Amino acid sequence: MKAVGICGSDVHYLKTMRCADFIVKEPMVIGHECAGIIEEVGNEVKSLTPGDRVALEPGISCWRCSYCKDGSYNLCPDMKFFATPPVHGSLANQVVHPADLCFKLPDNVSLEEGAMCEPLSVGIHACRRANVGAETTVLIMGAGPIGLVTMLAARAFGAPRIVLVDVDSHRLSVAKQLGADGIVQVSTNIQDVTNEVAEIQKTMGAGVDVTFDCAGFSKTMSTALSATRSGGKVCLVGMGHGEMVVPLTGAAAREVDIVGIFRYKNTWPLCLEFLRTGKIDVKPLITHRFNFSQSEVVEAFETSARGGDAIKVMFNL
Amino acid sequence: MKAVGICGSDVHYLKTMRCADFIVKEPMVIGHECAGIIEEVGNEVKSLTPGDRVALEPGISCWRCSYCKDGSYNLCPDMKFFATPPVHGSLANQVVHPADLCFKLPDNVSLEEGAMCEPLSVGIHACRRANVGAETTVLIMGAGPIGLVTMLAARAFGAPRIVLVDVDSHRLSVAKQLGADGIVQVSTNIQDVTNEVAEIQKTMGAGVDVTFDCAGFSKTMSTALSATRSGGKVCLVGMGHGEMVVPLTGAAAREVDIVGIFRYKNTWPLCLEFLRTGKIDVKPLITHRFNFSQSEVVEAFETSARGGDAIKVMFNL
Amino acid sequence: MKAVGICGSDVHYLKTMRCADFIVKEPMVIGHECAGIIEEVGNEVKSLTPGDRVALEPGISCWRCSYCKDGSYNLCPDMKFFATPPVHGSLANQVVHPADLCFKLPDNVSLEEGAMCEPLSVGIHACRRANVGAETTVLIMGAGPIGLVTMLAARAFGAPRIVLVDVDSHRLSVAKQLGADGIVQVSTNIQDVTNEVAEIQKTMGAGVDVTFDCAGFSKTMSTALSATRSGGKVCLVGMGHGEMVVPLTGAAAREVDIVGIFRYKNTWPLCLEFLRTGKIDVKPLITHRFNFSQSEVVEAFETSARGGDAIKVMFNL
Amino acid sequence: MKAVGICGSDVHYLKTMRCADFIVKEPMVIGHECAGIIEEVGNEVKSLTPGDRVALEPGISCWRCSYCKDGSYNLCPDMKFFATPPVHGSLANQVVHPADLCFKLPDNVSLEEGAMCEPLSVGIHACRRANVGAETTVLIMGAGPIGLVTMLAARAFGAPRIVLVDVDSHRLSVAKQLGADGIVQVSTNIQDVTNEVAEIQKTMGAGVDVTFDCAGFSKTMSTALSATRSGGKVCLVGMGHGEMVVPLTGAAAREVDIVGIFRYKNTWPLCLEFLRTGKIDVKPLITHRFNFSQSEVVEAFETSARGGDAIKVMFNL
Repeated sequence: MKAVGICGSDVHYLKTMRCADFIVKEPMVIGHECAGIIEEVGNEVKSLTPGDRVALEPGISCWRCSYCKDGSYNLCPDMKFFATPPVHGSLANQVVHPADLCFKLPDNVSLEEGAMCEPLSVGIHACRRANVGAETTVLIMGAGPIGLVTMLAARAFGAPRIVLVDVDSHRLSVAKQLGADGIVQVSTNIQDVTNEVAEIQKTMGAGVDVTFDCAGFSKTMSTALSATRSGGKVCLVGMGHGEMVVPLTGAAAREVDIVGIFRYKNTWPLCLEFLRTGKIDVKPLITHRFNFSQSEVVEAFETSARGGDAIKVMFNL
Repeated sequence: MKAVGICGSDVHYLKTMRCADFIVKEPMVIGHECAGIIEEVGNEVKSLTPGDRVALEPGISCWRCSYCKDGSYNLCPDMKFFATPPVHGSLANQVVHPADLCFKLPDNVSLEEGAMCEPLSVGIHACRRANVGAETTVLIMGAGPIGLVTMLAARAFGAPRIVLVDVDSHRLSVAKQLGADGIVQVSTNIQDVTNEVAEIQKTMGAGVDVTFDCAGFSKTMSTALSATRSGGKVCLVGMGHGEMVVPLTGAAAREVDIVGIFRYKNTWPLCLEFLRTGKIDVKPLITHRFNFSQSEVVEAFETSARGGDAIKVMFNL
Repeated sequence: MKAVGICGSDVHYLKTMRCADFIVKEPMVIGHECAGIIEEVGNEVKSLTPGDRVALEPGISCWRCSYCKDGSYNLCPDMKFFATPPVHGSLANQVVHPADLCFKLPDNVSLEEGAMCEPLSVGIHACRRANVGAETTVLIMGAGPIGLVTMLAARAFGAPRIVLVDVDSHRLSVAKQLGADGIVQVSTNIQDVTNEVAEIQKTMGAGVDVTFDCAGFSKTMSTALSATRSGGKVCLVGMGHGEMVVPLTGAAAREVDIVGIFRYKNTWPLCLEFLRTGKIDVKPLITHRFNFSQSEVVEAFETSARGGDAIKVMFNL
Repeated sequence: MKAVGICGSDVHYLKTMRCADFIVKEPMVIGHECAGIIEEVGNEVKSLTPGDRVALEPGISCWRCSYCKDGSYNLCPDMKFFATPPVHGSLANQVVHPADLCFKLPDNVSLEEGAMCEPLSVGIHACRRANVGAETTVLIMGAGPIGLVTMLAARAFGAPRIVLVDVDSHRLSVAKQLGADGIVQVSTNIQDVTNEVAEIQKTMGAGVDVTFDCAGFSKTMSTALSATRSGGKVCLVGMGHGEMVVPLTGAAAREVDIVGIFRYKNTWPLCLEFLRTGKIDVKPLITHRFNFSQSEVVEAFETSARGGDAIKVMFNL
């Protein structure tokens, strides 16, 4: 293992021993955004040889259930996934992993960039589910790491106009630098939705076809539902609130559909192709780097947890 | 005009001068579920002649906007729709209406059944949006008129197993008589969702592919989201609550999509075909009939408003 | 192994040592339409126990390639399929097969019916690819075994009107008995297409939404392309001619799409459900039965090869 | 009318009084690729004022039939289309046309470019029907005007790799200049298909997801069907041969679907947006310009008919 990024869920597990409904009951290695170098391969493996630089897709599905057989392996009930209890993660010097989940890096893609395939895959899968293309105007609620990878993915899928919304002006300025066509700063006050939707729509300058809620709060989802044009889609990516208070009926009556995502499927080859051709550049997202010594590990997690100017914190092992 | 059904929205307008966001500001004729006999046709009309028995689709769209041109005329922002303010409805002796929205009744379909095409269209459009077919198990929250027409539509689309849920045992027994494969009586207490979902799933005997929430309350929608299998769909049809408290994140993370409906489009020919071939029988839904005299009009609306054993109240003019 | 049906491809292999592009180079067991009783299971198998009656899906795909991972395992380039050279078939007393490709028969489904899941799967897959449902009028070219299973599948998917076309009056009368809404006898002369299309459309009494060409000759495909309404679909199932002379441009200019099928995927559970509920009855298709003695084997293949009143010839082992 | 392009069909009508199945029986104005300046508007028209520069969509559909109502107005059987007999075309100083088919040009889009929306729409509609996006590798048979606009459209839809095939080296060099990622020169000899497919696939360097046959001959379609990966699509755009000799069965057995196109629908707003933002530049396609004097008209049509270095011949009225 050579490069491992820190995800919000890793921080959650570290601090609270749980993330969403997953609870850590026994000591567990965390980490699942990773790339490394092949040391050894099984004797039936033809696709890889020792020395190959690879990015790892972290979930091993069963290939026996109806979800796997029907092309929705991300919904497999028997999924074994790095750092989802009780399965160990990949923030380790070595892991054993199926060959078909190890994707060779093109020569011009670094191990760090390889590790970034994991968060980028969330954005790719969201764009596929929302069917983003050259005719799709895109609104993104939240300019954190997931909002930003979703922006990069939407751009790579051809979205002609992308507007990002956040409460934090620094995050918005980063979004602007990374290519947002428009940014709108909002409050956390749900009373402001109507005015803010008006400002968002003015900034978009056209109907919003697809909104990605990369925060996942009642406020952001209410804004998303109201800002999207009739017949459009809202894709719920973030998981801020479990339970939400939202104007669902009004959205349904305008045939604004809501689609969710769970992880991703079949995204690594596309991520690597986008990185290889330069359609997506994830390097600016890697803001902090640490080695795998005891002292730096602590600092790395603290940096990631603190947020602020830290977008992606990366270990180089 | 010969047969006009009373819809919940008609009762709302009558009692409160509003329905959802639509407000009545000047005297307005209500009614939009209707069929009649052609008296006179324009000189370019080839499809109809006086004496033809027809069912009327109530909405006139613009055919100029992007929604109309792209096959989503139900979302046309310039729609003129019977009894949606300020457009007059069709509970009248005569109306003027475009020929292409007047559909000839097959010989074996009565005027009353023709008027039933309107509520039935809601069920048809919901089934189309949720892509119901011979492989789709269906759960329906609410056994009122819309729940029942959705059940009839889902059956006609081939759904092999349909379970209805309601708080009212009489309604559920009607659903059973009309062909529900299973029924589950629930409470209005949101604390009961977990147990009720377990009972629903046991009654279904398989994963729920599509749930139609024909009530539209926080409780029903929470149940719908939890009861539907990963990768399934929830279609929000009812409009009980504008704002809902719902576990949206958990549903999104299982890729349970939410689709809404607004009225319908291109449903009359299919309704009439289903009625002609007997795939759908709407006659048992017409529980009360009134003529158009002053005294009966009042009683008709009171009967409809009272609910109870009244499913559809019909005027014969 | 308890029941094995004879397929046209088995007869081809027997007579010519080849079928389409597949060539037999070494002795090979044929047979792939089969059901049997579990004798022994691997120690990780939880879904089956000895004594279970099961139908076998004949193809083992790799679950490593992009087709398998994306839900199109039928297109897997590394497929190992019963009786596709050099893989042995299942006309044998015993076979070893993956547990997830062995589907338990419901109590009311016989082993013979279980073996019929294989040809029926072709019809099911064709109907899925052509998106047949309650609004789809269906035309079927060819009333042989595949035409008939496609008819049964289309009916189970809800097709309201199905017309079958063949050159043979006996086959057409069987189709009629099995539920065809209309039948049209045609010639093999390509000059007759125009008149025959007119007769087909008259028999259909409405536009043809989907045509299945279960023969696969220039004549049948030309008829299929001409008979289908603008915006409809033609599904090419039969493989009579490799190269065809067809009016492709005219069909394309009416946006009549052509979809092909290769075998099937994820069809066994649905087949068994259709058989269990009686939505499909395959028993009338089994016209001849033989045991597995030397003399009867010869007669069985001769019966199948002769055609005539033989639809499906079945071995009971 | 200010700018009118010459289409191959105009040349056909001029020379032979027919095009495909359409026959000219009475004198008819030709021309349908056009843009102009509004002189006068009807009194209900709000979207336009005299002096507005507009591009014209040439087809007036009925908005009454099932195709129009369902979003497929291009298939309307009552379509009235510029220069499709007996409807006059737009190579005239003035035409009367519905306001909703006149699209205002952005300030940075010229009238000539506006006229180019018509041929470009063919490419746009083809890309939409074949679902081209950022993950779609594209092969185009034919580097004439339609092959080139399809290339520009596919690029605008995000296709990462586009290879063009033609018999003419000059056309291929133009394609290369306009952005083709690869070009392959082929013969007209159908015996060469196997070798040429191998060369095409080598040039693509990956499976071909979508092939557009912009020529429409037996040779090009055979190549298209063989070169496309299993599960891919072939879109038949060109209309060289009415009847084709093609290996349809082999393609169907790899689930290579064939989709056709007829004109286009809802393409003008997108064309103008692509032209405004520079995602598409059609100016290099306009190789020859003529005014509307008697002598130049003759020369213009001769230039267009001659082909060679003439891609698009444009009248400036």
